[in-house]
Parts: sequence; C-alpha cells; structure tokens
Amino acid sequence: MFISFEGIDGCGKSMQSAWLAKALRTEGRRVLHTREPGGSPGAEEIRRLLVEGAGERWSVETECLLFTAARRDHLERTIRPALDAGQTVITDRFADSTRVYQGTTRGDLRQIVDRLHALMIGVEPDRTFVIDVDPAIALARGKARGGNEDRFESFGLDFQLRLAAGFRALAQEYPDRVRVIDGSGSVEDVAARVRAAL
Amino acid sequence: MFISFEGIDGCGKSMQSAWLAKALRTEGRRVLHTREPGGSPGAEEIRRLLVEGAGERWSVETECLLFTAARRDHLERTIRPALDAGQTVITDRFADSTRVYQGTTRGDLRQIVDRLHALMIGVEPDRTFVIDVDPAIALARGKARGGNEDRFESFGLDFQLRLAAGFRALAQEYPDRVRVIDGSGSVEDVAARVRAAL
Repeated sequence: MFISFEGIDGCGKSMQSAWLAKALRTEGRRVLHTREPGGSPGAEEIRRLLVEGAGERWSVETECLLFTAARRDHLERTIRPALDAGQTVITDRFADSTRVYQGTTRGDLRQIVDRLHALMIGVEPDRTFVIDVDPAIALARGKARGGNEDRFESFGLDFQLRLAAGFRALAQEYPDRVRVIDGSGSVEDVAARVRAAL
Repeated sequence: MFISFEGIDGCGKSMQSAWLAKALRTEGRRVLHTREPGGSPGAEEIRRLLVEGAGERWSVETECLLFTAARRDHLERTIRPALDAGQTVITDRFADSTRVYQGTTRGDLRQIVDRLHALMIGVEPDRTFVIDVDPAIALARGKARGGNEDRFESFGLDFQLRLAAGFRALAQEYPDRVRVIDGSGSVEDVAARVRAAL
C-alpha cells in the first residue's frame, strides 16, 4: 500500500505521516516513511536546488522539471523497491504537491504538470490524506520552525490561502483516493481522524 | 542567429565554437558564446549533478529530466534574452546532445526525449555543426584533458563509436539545419570548413 500526505507547509503532515508509520509498525507492518522533494540520495541533492535560495530562483516551468526529476529518482530508488518488497510506503508529499504548487498556485501550468506526470511518473498513491489547517496558523508554525528551507513560505499568507484551497480541491478531483482531514486540535486528535479514514 | 555545435567529447567543438565566436566578433557582430549543460547560473548548478559522480548515478529517464531542466533555464535566462537583443548565439551543445545520448545511445528514449523537448523547450538552432572525428582520437584527447567531468567518457570506446554514429545521423534527420564537418587536421583547417558551411 502506497499512502501520501499532502497540505501546506506547517499543516502537520510530516508529524502525522510519521505518527501513522509508527502506528502501523506497532501493528507488525513493515513501513517505509519517506518524503518529497527528496527521499533518495539523488533526489535529496535536487531538493537542495529547489528549497534553498531566493523566491524567483527558477521559472515555474524549470521548477516542474526539477520536481519531476526528483520524483522519478525517488520512485525508482526508494518507493518502487519498497512496494515490490511488500512494504507499506508512506510519503510526506508526492505528485499532488506539484499539481497544486506549480499547476494552479505559483503558476498556471496544470496541463504541463499533467503531461509530465503521465510521461515520466505515471503512478498515484492508493490513498492520500490532505491535512487541512488555517493557513495563518500553518504559516506561524513554519516561521517558528526556522531553517533555510523557507522558499514557498516567503510568498506570504495570500499564497498559502490559495494553496490550501488547491489542496482541498483535490478531494473533488480524485474522490476515490483523496481524503481531507481536519488538522485542528492535538496531534492525537488528528491522528485518530487519519486512522478512522484509512 | 542561433548556432549550435555538437559531437562527442574531445571532437573539438568547444574550440571550434569559440573560434567562430571570435571570427564573427572580428567582423563586428555581437556574439554570445555559451555551453550546455550550463550556460546560466541555475543550469550550471544542475550541470554539477549531471557531469560529476559515477556512471549510473541517474537512470536515463531522470537524466533526461535534469538535462531538460538545465536547458529550459539556459534558454530563458541566457539564450532568449541575447537573441531578443539582436546578438548571435553560439552554443557548445543543445537539444541534439540529449537526442543522441539519452535518446539513442545511453538509453532508447527518443520518443520521451522528443515529447519533453516539444513540451518544455520547443526551439531549434538555425544552424547546427556536428564536428566529426575518429572516436579513438577524441577519447584520447578527452582523457588527456583530465578534470572530474568525465562521466560519459568513462563508458568507453564502443559507446563513443555509437555516439558518433548518432551525431552523423542527425544530418539525415534534419537536412536543412545540420551540417557534418570533417574534424580532422589543424584547428584552422576545421574552422575554415565551418566558415565555408555557414
């Protein structure tokens, strides 16, 4: 089984995906917990080009190509081998992030994003959880976290509001795969909602 | 005018492209001399991921995506602005290198290479010179040059022979654009053949 977590930065998806991985391991499953961009040695190198540096470092088109390159490496070297070995794979972000960020929010490239995905990736998770929180709260969390990986957070609250709407819209587009999870309350509250929806 | 030089490593195309740039400048033209992968700050960073490191660092598919990302950045930030400003652009490698390396020699991905090019690049040079030399001579030159950018040279002579055939075949595929130049003899001899063909 291949599960992805999606949502804006600071929504709690990293915590929730790790929490679910731990819970499934406790039940005796073999689980690989991974993330994008990154998740394989090559993709982590591409990640540095994407998440560090100033806001307009790449055009949206070049960014699409770099995210797709990182995803291809992650799929070949990490996700596919784990699924083939019978493991459950839980990833913090996958193709939906590119659909929302480059496809409809930072850019208007949804058609290009879809063609690149069909040509070079062609795989969807079995289940996707969108962790939905108030963008103002998520933005404050992201800023508190610090670090040098803040490219998209630097685009401000209006950008985060449009991103959050884009993630929620995925549930209409892919009703069989995507579940929107209320991200308010404690980590345990949200984790319980994820388990109920799985 | 947009001119590219192509051929296997060590064929002399870097020297010949620089020589032509100098000759055209002497005649009063404004000329931008550039190269791939690279040619813009972002593309040079992607170049490091592509030309350094061991032989099978990336799958052919991931390599296609990274070369296309670098080309898109090079096109947007260097080539297009120079052409718009009325300069002649001379590049050491462009899309034909991806057609030959990933499309037909390292991989068999010509259809994917073509679709990626149509989707994300969509531009061809006005004139392309393939500098054609004996691969054994080119390989010896490349080895003598040293440095840490030797990924494709490490694939050996048989690989270079197939590459050279792939570059020659471009002249049949694009008869209006591609000219094969005999790369034997002195730098001046070859430069005179390029000028005659221009």
